[in-house]
Amino acid sequence: MTVRRPRVITLLTDFGNQDAYVGIVKGVIAGINPFANIADICHSVPPQDIFSGAYLLYTSYKYFPRKTIHVAVVDPGVGSKRDIVCVETKDYFFLVPDNGLLSFIVQEEKPKSIIRVTNNKYFLPLPSSTFHGRDVFAPVAAHLSLGVKPQQLGIKINQLEQLDIPKPVRKKTGQVEGQIIYIDRFGNLITNITKEHLVKGVEGQKSEDRSQKLENRIKQRKTTLKELFSLCNTIETVIGRKKVVGLSNTYLDVNAGEPLVLFGSAGFLEISINQGNAQKYFRVDRGNKIRVEMGSY
Amino acid sequence: MTVRRPRVITLLTDFGNQDAYVGIVKGVIAGINPFANIADICHSVPPQDIFSGAYLLYTSYKYFPRKTIHVAVVDPGVGSKRDIVCVETKDYFFLVPDNGLLSFIVQEEKPKSIIRVTNNKYFLPLPSSTFHGRDVFAPVAAHLSLGVKPQQLGIKINQLEQLDIPKPVRKKTGQVEGQIIYIDRFGNLITNITKEHLVKGVEGQKSEDRSQKLENRIKQRKTTLKELFSLCNTIETVIGRKKVVGLSNTYLDVNAGEPLVLFGSAGFLEISINQGNAQKYFRVDRGNKIRVEMGSY
Amino acid sequence: MTVRRPRVITLLTDFGNQDAYVGIVKGVIAGINPFANIADICHSVPPQDIFSGAYLLYTSYKYFPRKTIHVAVVDPGVGSKRDIVCVETKDYFFLVPDNGLLSFIVQEEKPKSIIRVTNNKYFLPLPSSTFHGRDVFAPVAAHLSLGVKPQQLGIKINQLEQLDIPKPVRKKTGQVEGQIIYIDRFGNLITNITKEHLVKGVEGQKSEDRSQKLENRIKQRKTTLKELFSLCNTIETVIGRKKVVGLSNTYLDVNAGEPLVLFGSAGFLEISINQGNAQKYFRVDRGNKIRVEMGSY
Repeated sequence: MTVRRPRVITLLTDFGNQDAYVGIVKGVIAGINPFANIADICHSVPPQDIFSGAYLLYTSYKYFPRKTIHVAVVDPGVGSKRDIVCVETKDYFFLVPDNGLLSFIVQEEKPKSIIRVTNNKYFLPLPSSTFHGRDVFAPVAAHLSLGVKPQQLGIKINQLEQLDIPKPVRKKTGQVEGQIIYIDRFGNLITNITKEHLVKGVEGQKSEDRSQKLENRIKQRKTTLKELFSLCNTIETVIGRKKVVGLSNTYLDVNAGEPLVLFGSAGFLEISINQGNAQKYFRVDRGNKIRVEMGSY
Repeated sequence: MTVRRPRVITLLTDFGNQDAYVGIVKGVIAGINPFANIADICHSVPPQDIFSGAYLLYTSYKYFPRKTIHVAVVDPGVGSKRDIVCVETKDYFFLVPDNGLLSFIVQEEKPKSIIRVTNNKYFLPLPSSTFHGRDVFAPVAAHLSLGVKPQQLGIKINQLEQLDIPKPVRKKTGQVEGQIIYIDRFGNLITNITKEHLVKGVEGQKSEDRSQKLENRIKQRKTTLKELFSLCNTIETVIGRKKVVGLSNTYLDVNAGEPLVLFGSAGFLEISINQGNAQKYFRVDRGNKIRVEMGSY
Repeated sequence: MTVRRPRVITLLTDFGNQDAYVGIVKGVIAGINPFANIADICHSVPPQDIFSGAYLLYTSYKYFPRKTIHVAVVDPGVGSKRDIVCVETKDYFFLVPDNGLLSFIVQEEKPKSIIRVTNNKYFLPLPSSTFHGRDVFAPVAAHLSLGVKPQQLGIKINQLEQLDIPKPVRKKTGQVEGQIIYIDRFGNLITNITKEHLVKGVEGQKSEDRSQKLENRIKQRKTTLKELFSLCNTIETVIGRKKVVGLSNTYLDVNAGEPLVLFGSAGFLEISINQGNAQKYFRVDRGNKIRVEMGSY
């Protein structure tokens, strides 16, 4: 006999930790599948902030084992006609209100199927109109973890709601302009700028600005980021009226209390203060613009 | 061979999440029963706020599987002569200081037995006088989860301490007057008014105010809430100097930022703001009076 | 067949609960050892506050079952050349950055071995420089829980970084002077003064101050704390310009709202307010000096 691996069900909500809502959801799951392994991703998403929920789910989902059931409930439309969907990808199941919570994820994980969840056989009896986390998401997730197939939950649909995720743009001046999309507990300012955007920014520079060597590498699509940066004279990140020069590898590259720019653990350009709080230092908020200027070659 | 279902032990405390107290409790349980399934209900009960603890436990306990052991520690009397009790009901075990934490629950779940926990064989050695969560509640709960019977924990007693839970009253003006008993993370104002109170409020109206049809239904005790409300001209909820007209089914029945009244997921009348915070909007707090006026028929 | 006990992996970090960092760590562990029993000790250590992390780990670790793997990540040096170490003691494994997080623990639990963790076979591929919790600590802890030996993780070293933990001193006036080292959610002021310090304080008094009976007991090293205190006329604790007389056993020894001094659940002298908040009452903070004066005999 082999003991079956417990299926992981993750929870990401805006329920907070001050009430009993999260506990209730876990009770419902444990009642249906006592062997489910419930893992909290986060419950402190600001109330109704779908964008932050989508970002946090995106940074986490792929670190869980295959077949994990990711349940995300940031759901200002609860009780209305918005759909609840079960999305299956190559490796995961997602159970979410159809309001854009998967907007970041579908950019890199193509849905194999999208099911509108309607089969109330898998709901608690007489579901409330205000707490679908308890009455719909929890029992459906628990049944999925027991082997119910997404197809049994409802009918197939073709499209998901999408949030408008801001993309960095290349300015005429050559700068890459992005924005702060998330600020974490440490005050790190996480932007929407990836390494790829900077590489493209360099590729987009007029060729008279570039060295012949770099020119050839770019033509052959062999440029690595490291090369690019090693060739750069300077990278400057402009945030408000302040400027941070250079790109760091670790927080410790600068002195305590000083600002730095690096690519963070989610793959995005981040502005931080070594042992400090960049949000307080720069007095900025989500949505603030960030410009990155790469020197000539 | 069948793998035994892990027994669920829930934890509800005022220990908060900023210290290690909750983690320590989990350590003690895991040391005695490594297969226990520990589920947090909530640890953010305001310090020593037994009433909120009692409310949160009430809204959660029945969503857990049968035989769950509910441990609630909001315990301003720790170390004094207050009792610790193990209460068994038809479906659950409760392990609590005897200070009123079960006041809501015993209104709907009659105790089969109440045991004063005194058998220190099931405690940690040399229990402290300030952290019974670690030294008494955790080990006793773990032993219960291993099959120890409540009767082995101490001697039977007959009565539990009760909080004074405020009841709604019917005013001479015909209004039902209740009060805010809990405010959640979203700022929803949860009152002590249930559907039953409103039905009784209507039943208590002088009959010349009511339609003949409704009159007959009430006599035959066949009135449903839906009928009552469909017959009502208006339901008005008065909170401070403000008034909310009508009863909603979902938050989305009104525009974003507007107030509404509905029956929430715990069965109580709630005042909310669609995508907003009713506590901030109405500037009220727990204990504030709420009046519901049902129009004539 | 017997079902193996799940190994406990504890987590203590400064990651907070507002982001997804803790959830991600749990995902990585579940992916490697789906049967690991992950227990949160605390994630609200103030950012980069190694001292508080060390204190909290010290008060918790020994309440977990033998062979528990304690992972603590308060790591201002992440990505720099600071070491990650796996420390094995008689009963436990600790996986921490080598920055002093074990400073309290090594005072009572001698390391059997200290390994500098370098074997990246047990890391996630391409570890980031900012999130070793995800890329190093989580996978290494999971592998340990599967039976990997500390020796397989890297090479043996001999010494750990130590924090400077303040020790109480005996003043010429005979007072024992300590300081507040931690303040918990309830506002309890936890000092670095243990019972042993007070006993030594009494032993250090000039003998003309002491009764002959006590004198003899002390000579024979038979004095118990209880005896000492029962012989003391007064114990006074001075905090700022205020004074608390006597030593309590429980919070309830004084009226609600009044201050008291007792030995708390971690073994340290604590100043509390019965059903109140001593930090607000005394307006003090970590580092504030506390003096205890034991009357003559």
